[in-house]
Order: sequence, then structure tokens, then C-alpha cells
Amino acid sequence: MPVPAPNLYPDFNTIRLSHVCLNVKDLSVSKTFYTDILGFQISDETRDHVYLRAMEERGHHSVILQRSDAPGTVEVLGFKTFDDDDLDKADVYFQSKGRSTSWVDRPFQGRTLLTSDNLGIPLEFYHKMDRLESIHQKYALYRGVKPLRIDHFNCFSNDVDASVAFYNDFGFRVTEYTEDAASEKLWAAWMHRKGGVHDMAFTNGTGPRLHHVAFWVPTPMNIIDLLDLMATTGYVSNIERGPGRHGISNAFFLYILDPDGHRIEIYCSDYQTLDPDHEPIKWDLKDPQRQTLWGAAAPQSWFEHGTQFVGVGLVESTIDASPIIAP
Amino acid sequence: MPVPAPNLYPDFNTIRLSHVCLNVKDLSVSKTFYTDILGFQISDETRDHVYLRAMEERGHHSVILQRSDAPGTVEVLGFKTFDDDDLDKADVYFQSKGRSTSWVDRPFQGRTLLTSDNLGIPLEFYHKMDRLESIHQKYALYRGVKPLRIDHFNCFSNDVDASVAFYNDFGFRVTEYTEDAASEKLWAAWMHRKGGVHDMAFTNGTGPRLHHVAFWVPTPMNIIDLLDLMATTGYVSNIERGPGRHGISNAFFLYILDPDGHRIEIYCSDYQTLDPDHEPIKWDLKDPQRQTLWGAAAPQSWFEHGTQFVGVGLVESTIDASPIIAP
Amino acid sequence: MPVPAPNLYPDFNTIRLSHVCLNVKDLSVSKTFYTDILGFQISDETRDHVYLRAMEERGHHSVILQRSDAPGTVEVLGFKTFDDDDLDKADVYFQSKGRSTSWVDRPFQGRTLLTSDNLGIPLEFYHKMDRLESIHQKYALYRGVKPLRIDHFNCFSNDVDASVAFYNDFGFRVTEYTEDAASEKLWAAWMHRKGGVHDMAFTNGTGPRLHHVAFWVPTPMNIIDLLDLMATTGYVSNIERGPGRHGISNAFFLYILDPDGHRIEIYCSDYQTLDPDHEPIKWDLKDPQRQTLWGAAAPQSWFEHGTQFVGVGLVESTIDASPIIAP
Amino acid sequence: MPVPAPNLYPDFNTIRLSHVCLNVKDLSVSKTFYTDILGFQISDETRDHVYLRAMEERGHHSVILQRSDAPGTVEVLGFKTFDDDDLDKADVYFQSKGRSTSWVDRPFQGRTLLTSDNLGIPLEFYHKMDRLESIHQKYALYRGVKPLRIDHFNCFSNDVDASVAFYNDFGFRVTEYTEDAASEKLWAAWMHRKGGVHDMAFTNGTGPRLHHVAFWVPTPMNIIDLLDLMATTGYVSNIERGPGRHGISNAFFLYILDPDGHRIEIYCSDYQTLDPDHEPIKWDLKDPQRQTLWGAAAPQSWFEHGTQFVGVGLVESTIDASPIIAP
Repeated sequence: MPVPAPNLYPDFNTIRLSHVCLNVKDLSVSKTFYTDILGFQISDETRDHVYLRAMEERGHHSVILQRSDAPGTVEVLGFKTFDDDDLDKADVYFQSKGRSTSWVDRPFQGRTLLTSDNLGIPLEFYHKMDRLESIHQKYALYRGVKPLRIDHFNCFSNDVDASVAFYNDFGFRVTEYTEDAASEKLWAAWMHRKGGVHDMAFTNGTGPRLHHVAFWVPTPMNIIDLLDLMATTGYVSNIERGPGRHGISNAFFLYILDPDGHRIEIYCSDYQTLDPDHEPIKWDLKDPQRQTLWGAAAPQSWFEHGTQFVGVGLVESTIDASPIIAP
Repeated sequence: MPVPAPNLYPDFNTIRLSHVCLNVKDLSVSKTFYTDILGFQISDETRDHVYLRAMEERGHHSVILQRSDAPGTVEVLGFKTFDDDDLDKADVYFQSKGRSTSWVDRPFQGRTLLTSDNLGIPLEFYHKMDRLESIHQKYALYRGVKPLRIDHFNCFSNDVDASVAFYNDFGFRVTEYTEDAASEKLWAAWMHRKGGVHDMAFTNGTGPRLHHVAFWVPTPMNIIDLLDLMATTGYVSNIERGPGRHGISNAFFLYILDPDGHRIEIYCSDYQTLDPDHEPIKWDLKDPQRQTLWGAAAPQSWFEHGTQFVGVGLVESTIDASPIIAP
Repeated sequence: MPVPAPNLYPDFNTIRLSHVCLNVKDLSVSKTFYTDILGFQISDETRDHVYLRAMEERGHHSVILQRSDAPGTVEVLGFKTFDDDDLDKADVYFQSKGRSTSWVDRPFQGRTLLTSDNLGIPLEFYHKMDRLESIHQKYALYRGVKPLRIDHFNCFSNDVDASVAFYNDFGFRVTEYTEDAASEKLWAAWMHRKGGVHDMAFTNGTGPRLHHVAFWVPTPMNIIDLLDLMATTGYVSNIERGPGRHGISNAFFLYILDPDGHRIEIYCSDYQTLDPDHEPIKWDLKDPQRQTLWGAAAPQSWFEHGTQFVGVGLVESTIDASPIIAP
Repeated sequence: MPVPAPNLYPDFNTIRLSHVCLNVKDLSVSKTFYTDILGFQISDETRDHVYLRAMEERGHHSVILQRSDAPGTVEVLGFKTFDDDDLDKADVYFQSKGRSTSWVDRPFQGRTLLTSDNLGIPLEFYHKMDRLESIHQKYALYRGVKPLRIDHFNCFSNDVDASVAFYNDFGFRVTEYTEDAASEKLWAAWMHRKGGVHDMAFTNGTGPRLHHVAFWVPTPMNIIDLLDLMATTGYVSNIERGPGRHGISNAFFLYILDPDGHRIEIYCSDYQTLDPDHEPIKWDLKDPQRQTLWGAAAPQSWFEHGTQFVGVGLVESTIDASPIIAP
């Protein structure tokens, strides 16, 4: 199935990914990791939650750590709409697609619509989150990898064609993709709303699961500083893959695992894609530089490990996953 | 006059600044400067024009060098619309504002509407420019400052309040601004369409004139490499100001002058502003860190020199320009 | 007077500069500046002294902050010899040059010979300083500019020819120098023992005074991070000059003033000079790129301000200092 | 056997490693690799040789590419002495150690003594090499990884204890080492003359063979630029290991193979070791961070592949090499 033509006039306007809520076992252990090592700033904390933002974010949070009996699962992926009306339009839209919707109470983020995508991934949409003072020039606060903002989600999908069609319908546009020549099926796709390479990506595999959430830093030096820090503060085994550069997206990357096994990508580079006539780049599944322009081969865990969404069952992909894993 | 509320639903959709046409005396001298020193790639050249793009741009050109009897003047500032229909809507819109419009023939960029803003700055809008193959991963081509993309225009305006109101009306949103407390007039403002700090900025002064066009690079190292190169290849006197960091926009900057005196900013940092509820940051005209978070004071030339738009007369500002120039 | 031929077999072997003792008014204020902003590590502190080292130094201290009634003066410049015998040879040597010598008690640094150079600059030599555990891989300790090691001293001399001859006699070798063509006198000279551009430099001016002590960092990014930090933590006025690149030494530099007016250079680049046949580079006093390969002109203070050595009188230079100060 | 006490007063004074002569199959192919990709400058070329230097080197060459029927072998390792007399002293010294010596004719490098070490590694010593003009400020010449200078050799030795003892005798000082606790034998050692971590290192294995020759660059960004360039110009398979950071030496490293299989390290970081009382750092053979502070595990080839010295037979090590290879 070819990549669908972009839907330039979707039913409602999602402007960008916004936040993720991660279930963790020990809030104190996780908080140390996200603040001392990664360098996030705390916006608020309660007995069961820690709300975090990166250095240039003015919204209240981009990461919520939630104490949970099911640590290592993901509660929800959050998105911000352009207008308040877009929430009502989204409500109608998702119902029309057969997805159930509900209005939920979320601290700090106003009216919030909870729904799910075609595979069951829990999504929430809001328009108005509390806005905080600007801290990007408070250089004394910068620590760890000095994260600037949340960049994207990447999920395992057991049917990438279906996932791409679903998100394409409400306006996500494909920037790069990999096709399996034999089956003519999509192997992976990167889709954006905010004008970069992606807000959301899908990779073939048992799904749905979150593969990683990524945060943007401006230079490879941020990543090297983080590696030096993690390697000498007891976190060396949390480094999973990298540094290296992907062919796809041209990203200089590092993948690490948080104390509960949530995979974090530190993502550097990216490029501007906001032209509506921006042509997606097609990659050959057999091109080894698709995955790794240069750098060590990814470990097996990187292809296999993902984190489940709370209460969402798994389905195996019908496409053989071995080609992508082979060296 | 306070900053106007953003117009979130303008009559037509401009997605970003796109290109500038600069009049030059000696095409060969200019070409050497833009390719060997700055590192632009040539998309096309004719007897009278050289078309250039930066390394991640897929559109045909972001800079046009044009042989001219009026070197050191600016021909036009170019913008890209979201859809082809937006061009017709823009035509109606600018006429309604009393600006004359015409459809002009521009190589490589399809149907193009030529008009002007409230001060007479010549603007052109198009939707469809020729698209070129991706070169951002052809690392053997990278040279000079390794520019990635055009970032913004900055113009002297003799009435910043009027300029901001005019661009606000068709959807440009203010991200940062400086107000003169005494007169309650805007001294300077930064306005965006594409989700960064600005596509267009205005500064108080004799206008309209182009203060500079800026190109984006990812790290301060790009700028330091350029300084080393310029300082040892005969271009040391083309370095005007920097490196330094602005308070406004948080940009790590360098200002240089091309062989005809067109000012180029090499711009690093920036931050994401696409939230419709992104609050503009207000700066005090008396805050010295507004201009220069750190770095040497700007030379007089930086406050006074700009390049005129072809055939557009100048008007002095009614606000005294001395405070901003004083050390 | 031409640069003297290097004395490759001096009477005693000085291996490198080692430390400086700076007199300060408020030990607590100075300590904050050197640790929180510059990132030095504390080796020891008493009521009247704070001992500091940079991140790769294994010797106990390279900076001593000393509470004093004469803040803003310099107590002594310290050097390390190759062997213990070298101290006795140095004792004989300096006495033969008519300089008085004495053995002084210095905590942490063993047998120490106090003497002075031809202009009266107090120098101390030791062989054995306490050695501390390696911390260069304790990345969690890195802060501020992340200084790696002390690099050099730079002093105003009222007779640069005499200063160069004096240090040349005990083995310091000239790497770069500036000559005043008219008078055929040395204007400035850079001299090393440890195989870099300099351990000690002299510049024409009222002397003797310390112009600055320099610390080495590996990349310009260290300096830019420091500028961002100082500019937003109340130290913006302590930034005196830079960043820029010197022609001489090819150093990417920043000059800052500590709370007592001691000038610190953060020094990046340098090159290897340990070949005994390494030819010094001669600079023309009229070459503006000698001082500044690129970057803003140095402020007047940079040419005029220095810190006196305790109890050492000043002598004006007989060479007119204006050429070097003129833009 | 413990690390021997440093010999601070050796019979002759070697100041640093100087150059390597590498045998290659196709001079044109090798020249392209060393100049276009690595960025070396050509000092001279003949039908059979290309002489290269890095950007801050004033000596005529640090790499000689030599057309040969035995490509992939190493002709000789070169060292520079402090004085001309040191050559005669070295002649006497090596003969006293039972090594044959001869005076050889080498273009550009004056009187040259050819001899060999205890394992047969061919070594040559000279004092006076042609000096070239300084090019470190000719920034237009910088290309590829922008190498600044040769840094060190690393050789497989079948008896590291014997190798260390041999080099220690003529003044090389150990900075870091790995001991096999079981056998109390040295597994690997790093030895210097010029005041950095090493001029020469030995690793246990079938020897003698050259493991790699290393060139120094100031920042990790040089290495990342090289990786991007190699990955997109047909050299991706020449990347063997890295980037990563060694525990030992704290080096940020990259290992690549030239067209004949000579291994090149691009080496960043290092630290100053010129204190005669600098204590060597001991590493535990079982500490995985010794090899890799962080980064992917080294491939098998990195442990096994080395290049032979012309005409020198191999001897297997008596220590089992498997522990170092195991993950």
C-alpha cells in the first residue's frame, strides 16, 4: 500500500505532541533519574505524581511520572490542539471512527478528551495547559543532558499501514518511511504535525507498545556529556544504544532506559518539514544505512523491548520481523 | 499601544518566509562569498542570477543574487503559502488593504503574487516552488558555516506599531517585543508564522529598510568555524558584530556584511513557539541584556546601516533612536 | 634586540608553572565565584585560605585564595621543578643573579624556595606537592567552565627584553613574540617550559604586574556555557573581553575579572611546542590580527588594568604603549 | 611484575614520537583517503611516497605512505631526540642492549639511526627534520577530521612486561596500566615521553604488531563530522569501532581502517602527565569500564587485527587473550 496523500484539511487541528504519562515503581528513584541525570525541571509533585518540563517548554509538563502497581507501562500519550473547539471536533471525529471518548479531569491541563487510536493506544487531547514562566535563559538551572523540549513518540504497530492511515486521516503527514518491497507493506513511518520529522512514528512489531519518547537537544555534545555522566554515576547499564546517526531523520541519537525500562531517546538534528508539498523520503528495508548511517549495530533489545499501554492487549504483526533485526 | 491579540484565523495562510532577492554589483564576487565562505549550494545560475539554497532546504532557492545597477538594494522578500488558493485570497486581502498587487513571472516558483506591505516593502507570495533532491546527508558538500535553512528577515520600520498591526492582521504572531515606556510605543517586535521566534522582525529606525536576513545553524561551533575562515581569507572586515548572545530570542549570533553590504545574520538557538497561546516576552528598552545577554557592544554601524528596497522611499521614525544606540 | 637563542641546558629544570596565590577581600565571595561559576574543586580550606584545583590536576592546588588586607594583589607565582636537587640548584642560580632567596613553609607543597625575578616578581619553586586522587572521570563534579588545568601567567613588564633574557637564562623558550620595528625592542613575548605556547608571557607596560592567569578548557563550548552562566547569575559585568581568537597562540579566549579584579583567562586551543628547534613566530606590532584574529576590539581596561605583586614597586615602561592600545 | 620505577635520567633524550611509514598498495587510493577524508596536508610526493603532516605540525611529515609489494605492513616507527648528540648516545645504548643499529638515509629528516626494540619493532631516531611554515591558522585548508598532530602508537606485544621494561629503560614513563591479577603480569601499559598519556602503548597479544597509530583532535565534534563524511562517501565499512570513551586515558575515540587495513585512531581528550611524580593509574583487567567507559562493545576484529612490521616474525603471547575479548 503506498503512503497515503496527506490530508491537508483535517477535521480538527492538532498542533503537536505534548506529554506522556509513565507508570513507575519508585517515584523517588525515577525523580532522581529525570532531574539529576536527564536535567528536567519539576513543575509540581504530589504523593503519586511528579510533573516535569524541559528547559524551553512553557507548558506545565511534558512528562508525568506516576506511581503505579504496573510500573513500566504507559498511561497515555498527550497532544495539544490549536483551539478549544478542536476538542469538540475531535470528540465527534473519534466517535465517528468507532473509538470511545470521554472527558477526563487532568490537573494543570484544562478540558481533556481521552480516546484511543485504531490499535487502542490511549490518546488525550487538550487545548489549554497551565503556562509557566520562561526558564530557558536561567542557565544556572541547566543540568544533565540539558533537554530543551519533547520531540516525538515512537510506537510498535502490528499493522503500520493501518496506523499510518488512521493518523493520516486526522492530519499527520508522513516525512520518511520504509517499505517492504516483497509485501508492498509499510515497515515503518514517521509522521508530523509540528513541522519537524515527526510527532509520532510507527515501527512494525508486536503492538501496540511505546518504543520510546524522545527529547530534543541542540548538539551531539549534550549527548556525550550525558554519556560521561551516566557512565560514572551508576547508570552505565541504562545506556542501550548509541551514540550514532540514523539514516532516517538524520538524527544523532542516544537511547537509554529509565529505572522502569521506559526507553528515552535523546534526539539531535531533525529538519524543517512544514511545507505542505514536502515529499516523504522512501527508504529501502534492505538499506543498512536506513537504521544506522554509522554507529554500532543496535542490540537485540532495541528491536524487541517496548512498554505496554495500560490495559491494552497485544497483537503480533503478520509481517516477519527478522529482516530488520538481522545485522 | 499594547501588542495586538494574535489573529489565529487570518484570511490566508502564510506558512513561512521563503527567500530574498539581493541586488549585487559583481555576481562572481558575490557567488564566491556565498558558496566558498558561507557554504550555500547553487541550484541554478544565469547571466544575471545565481540561485542558492541551504543544506536542508528542498525548495529551489532561499537566496537569489541578482546582477544590478543598484547594488546593495533589496529586490523583494518572498513567502510561501499553504495552498494555491491562499494566493488568490492574499490578492484580495492586500487589495482590501489598499496595496497594489500583480501576478509576476518568477522562474522556478510558479504562480507568484507581488505586492507590498504598509511601508512599501515589496513582498511576493507563491505556493509551489520547484523541489530539489535532499542533500542534507551529502556531508561531502558541507562547507563554510554549513547553513541549514533561511530563518528570518529583520527590517527597520519608521512605525513599528503600524508594522506589527499590519502583519498581525494576516496572521503573524508576536513572540518577543520591546516597548518604550515613555511613549508606550513599540520599539521592536519579533513575529512568526513557522513556529520559531520569528519569520519577520521590526526595529525602530528610518524605514523601510532590510536590517538583515538570517540563516540557521545548529551550534555555536559553526559560527566559530566561519569566523576563523573569514579572518584568514581576506574577509575579516566583513565581520560586523559578534559572536554574542541576544537576550531577545536567546540567539547565539554573528552579523556579517556581504560584498555589497547586505547584512547576514548567522543565527543559532531559537525555540519553539507554535502554541497559539504562547505568551510574548516583553523586554524593557532600558535593559541592556535585551540586546546583548553577553558580548561586546554593537558597533554604531549595526544600529544605522540597512539596505533599501528598490524604489521605496525612506521615512524617519518619530521616536528618538538614541536610547537603543547608547552603550 | 633579537630574541635570544634558547638555552636548552639550563642550570636547573623547571617543568611547568604550578599555582598562583591571589589576595582577596572576602573569602566566601571569592570561593563562590571560583567554585560555582568557574567550577574549581576545593582541596582544602582554612580560616584564611581556600586551596583549589582544576579537574585533571593531581597536584593539591593550582589556585590559592588568601584573605588579605591588600585584596586585588598577588602573593606569589609558583613553579614545579623536575627533581628535588633542582631546588638547590635554583637557590644557587638565583643568588648568582643577585636575587635574594629563602626557604619558606608552604602547606601541602614540601620544600619551597622563595625568590624573585629581575623585576621583583615573587616566584616560588617546589618539587613535591601533595598528590590527590584522580577526579577527571568524576563527571558529576564538573561545573561552570569545567576547567581542566592551569595554563599560563601573563605579566606586564616595563622591560620585555630584560624579562625575556632573564627567563631565557633558566630555560624558558620563546614561542611567539612581537617586535617594535622602530625601536627594535620586544613588545611582548610568550615563553614555555611544558611544551605549549607558554607558561609565562610578558607584555610591555607599567610593571611588574600580573595581567592574568589562564586556565585551559578543551572547546569553545566551555567558554560559551560560562558566558551564559555569568550573564544570568549576576556576573555580567565581570566579563571583560571576548570571546574571540588571538592571532598569537591561536587561542580562543575569554577574559573575566574575579570579585577582587584579578583577571582570569579561559584559554582554549594552544599547540605543541616541545621540539627544541621549534621556531618562534614573529608578529608585526602593526598587524591588527596579532591581537585579535577576529572579535571585538579589546576595551581600554584590558590594556591598562593589572594586579600588583605584594610589596613590589612599579616602573613605567620607556616604550610608548599607545600603538598597542590604538584600535 | 610491578610497574618499574620511572627512569628519570635516561641515557639519551627522546622527546616524542614523530612519524610512521605505512606500506600501501595503491598510493593514489591511500592519498585520497588521507587527504580528502582525514584532512592531512601533503608536504611532498614522489613516485613511491607521499609525505603528510597534520595541521599544527611544523616538522615535514608525521605519516609517510610508501608504495609497496607488502601493503598492510609497517616500515618503521619514528621518534625525535632532543639533541643531535642524543643520536650517538642512542646508537651506543641500543647496541649495549644487543640491538643492531645503522645510520640510514631518510629524505627531509637528517641523520637517522635505525634500530629495533626488544621484540624487533623497527624504530628510527632523528634530531633534525625539515621545518615547514606554520599552517594552523590557514583555516581554508582544514578538511575531514581536521587532524592537529600525531599522538601515539599502540602495539601488540607478546610480552608486555618485557616491552615496558625495555622502553622504561630509555625513559618512557607509565601513565596507566592493566594487570592480570592471577598471573601478576602486565596486560597492557601506556607510556609517554611528551607529557600526555602516551607516545607508545602495548597490549597483550601475538606480537609485535602495530595495533594503531593515533592522531589528536580537540573535540568530539571533529569525530562526528568524520563519521558523517565517511558514512556518505563510500567509507562506511572502514569505520571499525566507536565513537566511545575509554576508561583508560579518558579518550573519546574512533577507530577506522585505511584502504590497506592500517588502523587509525582519532583521539580526543588526553591529559597532562609531565610531572615526574605523576602516579600511574592501575586498572583491573575485569573492570569493563577500563576498555569502554561507555559505548558499544569492541568488535572481535579490534582485538585480533594488527599490522605486521616488515620482516619481523610473530610470537604468540603466553597469557590467554580471552578475558580481554570476552564481553
